[in-house]
Amino acid sequence: MEVKNRYVTVKNQLERDAEPKESDFEFKNTTISLALSDDGEVIVQNLYVSIDPYQINRMKKQSSSHKAIKSSSALSPGQVIDAYGVGRVVASTNSKFEKHDLVAGFLGWEEYSLIQGEFKLSFLRKLETSTDLPLSHQVGVLGLSGLTAYGGFYNVGRPKKGDKVFVSAASGSVGNLVGQYAKLSGCYVVGSAGNKQKVEMLKDKLGFDDAFNYKDESDLTSTLQRYFPDGIDIYFDNVGSKMLEAAIANMNPFGRVVACGAVSEYAYETNRASPNMIDVIYRRLSIQGFITPDYMKDYAEFASITSDYIRSAKLHVLEDISIGLESIPSAFVGILRGDNIGKKMVQIVERIE
Amino acid sequence: MEVKNRYVTVKNQLERDAEPKESDFEFKNTTISLALSDDGEVIVQNLYVSIDPYQINRMKKQSSSHKAIKSSSALSPGQVIDAYGVGRVVASTNSKFEKHDLVAGFLGWEEYSLIQGEFKLSFLRKLETSTDLPLSHQVGVLGLSGLTAYGGFYNVGRPKKGDKVFVSAASGSVGNLVGQYAKLSGCYVVGSAGNKQKVEMLKDKLGFDDAFNYKDESDLTSTLQRYFPDGIDIYFDNVGSKMLEAAIANMNPFGRVVACGAVSEYAYETNRASPNMIDVIYRRLSIQGFITPDYMKDYAEFASITSDYIRSAKLHVLEDISIGLESIPSAFVGILRGDNIGKKMVQIVERIE
Repeated sequence: MEVKNRYVTVKNQLERDAEPKESDFEFKNTTISLALSDDGEVIVQNLYVSIDPYQINRMKKQSSSHKAIKSSSALSPGQVIDAYGVGRVVASTNSKFEKHDLVAGFLGWEEYSLIQGEFKLSFLRKLETSTDLPLSHQVGVLGLSGLTAYGGFYNVGRPKKGDKVFVSAASGSVGNLVGQYAKLSGCYVVGSAGNKQKVEMLKDKLGFDDAFNYKDESDLTSTLQRYFPDGIDIYFDNVGSKMLEAAIANMNPFGRVVACGAVSEYAYETNRASPNMIDVIYRRLSIQGFITPDYMKDYAEFASITSDYIRSAKLHVLEDISIGLESIPSAFVGILRGDNIGKKMVQIVERIE
Repeated sequence: MEVKNRYVTVKNQLERDAEPKESDFEFKNTTISLALSDDGEVIVQNLYVSIDPYQINRMKKQSSSHKAIKSSSALSPGQVIDAYGVGRVVASTNSKFEKHDLVAGFLGWEEYSLIQGEFKLSFLRKLETSTDLPLSHQVGVLGLSGLTAYGGFYNVGRPKKGDKVFVSAASGSVGNLVGQYAKLSGCYVVGSAGNKQKVEMLKDKLGFDDAFNYKDESDLTSTLQRYFPDGIDIYFDNVGSKMLEAAIANMNPFGRVVACGAVSEYAYETNRASPNMIDVIYRRLSIQGFITPDYMKDYAEFASITSDYIRSAKLHVLEDISIGLESIPSAFVGILRGDNIGKKMVQIVERIE
């Protein structure tokens, strides 16, 4: 017994200074045997999978001296691309999961995923079927994107009421939530985004105190000085590069940079930020990186608080869903161009039952 | 009644992309009235004054958007340059200090200093006259340089036994002490310095596990990979620029960069570091700036521990003393070139009684 599977993969490792194209991807057909080992494996039919910018870092050619992306995380051409998502169990030798269970965790850009190994199994989480919230929320706002925003903002940003918070890529899957958490924590929040429609949405729909289109600005340091005449206390960085430099030039003493992403640097290594270290030293700034799995221990707290915010309409959920496995390459290329508003995901099956 | 005073000052604000020259300085004569106000002022005859690289940041033209150096700290041409030092009280209306007391604190590059205002008075500290340690130690190892090394390494670096520690400018006033504290804390320590004599001294005299001359190296990332095959846990940064980039490329997960100084960036703004933010994020690195006054609360603990280390010969004291007020410009230009070994100071009076 086996299931037919179809998945997306990269044809070649991506060049280190180029944007990905749809033609960098190809589809492959394979089969997954339903005869599982006794090691507690699970096969999941994928319903939604998450599309995240960080995946590009795994697809690129790795430099020999590059320790950042663990070799286990780097992707080879032809390999399945694992990704966060939601699915339904079709077979299990794991006592925690039964056939038909809805689950969330590290699945893959494919129709069916075989979940094995300690790391992936530890992330697999059974979903309540009786929840009033849409299943898609489990991919983004109640999934890895939400936990990234929550864990990074509260643990690394350490907000206090009245703090002035700047969020870049503020209409993205993580940024929009950071801004909303910041408002709910009594902070003053300004976001940057890449077009007028996004800027209006941040101000009108999500309650940001202000927002601007960075593409209209020639000198980001002056721009931030205009939006933060009293300086920035927390910069939640999703983009790196020139925006990071400009934010550091405008930070208040003891300000915190939450280094969440550097999407401007992902495709082009030469786009690196050159922050002024004299500012970092004299103003006692901290620049702190993090990755979301470090905060899995906070998942229950995060999900409970966030679900309550959603139910009471204090937090708006933005989802941008494409349909069908075949749409993954264009969805991925699109998020790196900033096409999405809110959480980008692909619904793998035509209809969610 | 008044005392004649002579002091060093800058003729003009220094250009933002040039090294300082002796001819940028001039000497001025003035007088200080011994008729003090009742506000608790103190006049000190300066015996030793500290020569530190950071002073250049106060002498440079400030950019309009530059918030790092508080306007109160920026120096105008003609102004006295305040600096840490040791002296003897010649007049006082402050109940904590009497004539003939030995004191340490923010004095100035001058013969006599009038100490007034809350900040400077809060730093002024009466010295025990019965101490067995040389008075000059109060300027460096038991003064601001020592507290910088101690406060930064322990508070920001948070060392654990076995941590791998890299120190740049390791033969300098702060770096040599950081390396020695690190060895005393059970860490593995490598230092960089700018000539062979310094490198030998670090290894042979100060007990560093290894050391190298950065001027002999063409690719600092590879160099650090060679000296730290198992990665760096703490980088105590005194220089910024290319060395900071190379250290970040070699850091272990959860590594800490103690951002103490950026002497490579002080004279030339264009020498900025462009650290790879992908490393910072994925390896959860922190880059944390600090300034020494933040750790004054730890002074007593620091001084007690450090004095004991010195008395038991566990910590070597390196001092580099020039004689006479007139030697200040060359001493200052020299430390920015790396001429000094250990703590650079100028003995203002010809003979210490």
